[in-house]
Amino acid sequence: MEDKVNLAAKLASFDGHFSPKVVGELNDYKIAVVKAKGEFVWHSHPDTDDFFLVVAGRLTIQLRDRDVELGPGELFVVPRGVEHCPKADEEAHVLLIEPLGTPNTGDAGGDLTASEERI
Amino acid sequence: MEDKVNLAAKLASFDGHFSPKVVGELNDYKIAVVKAKGEFVWHSHPDTDDFFLVVAGRLTIQLRDRDVELGPGELFVVPRGVEHCPKADEEAHVLLIEPLGTPNTGDAGGDLTASEERI
Repeated sequence: MEDKVNLAAKLASFDGHFSPKVVGELNDYKIAVVKAKGEFVWHSHPDTDDFFLVVAGRLTIQLRDRDVELGPGELFVVPRGVEHCPKADEEAHVLLIEPLGTPNTGDAGGDLTASEERI
Repeated sequence: MEDKVNLAAKLASFDGHFSPKVVGELNDYKIAVVKAKGEFVWHSHPDTDDFFLVVAGRLTIQLRDRDVELGPGELFVVPRGVEHCPKADEEAHVLLIEPLGTPNTGDAGGDLTASEERI
């Protein structure tokens, strides 16, 4: 059986931005952590909602009609099909939950598409 | 569209222990917060894993063969079918994620079974 996951320790174990690392699974969902800095890419997920919980720092989830500003202990679920683009002026640490196989870049694809690396 | 969720604010808005409150949804999963104090009831969920993330305080997830001790920023996923019994000597605040319709008491039932109240 898996052991517990300390989010800060996992986040301290890698570098790189917008490259999520899988730290656990919940049924057929992946539990991942990511470091965000700068602006990601506009995308949507046609088949799934997208869960963001800020662990440290501040993350802005840009939507087409507004910005959602998240600090530590704040979460937001982007509904399926809704375009969004995360950005962070300073490095932010974020917990992500979405179905296994969901690409981080959604329908946008491109160079920022990450594998589902497990740490 | 739902707004963001501030976990501390949600947790400050109710009293009572081992009575989860739903604060959001992720596809067909519920995102809930709970205040734990004392010992819950031994149970398992035959059809789903069970996600625990400690927001504040300390939570012990007793398994039949060991205890998993969680502090703030630590998560554990109890695999489906595995008996567990959460306990907390002092009040702990916890984020839970599991499929909508999953009873908090799993296969045990009884007086501690909570409705899926949304706050």
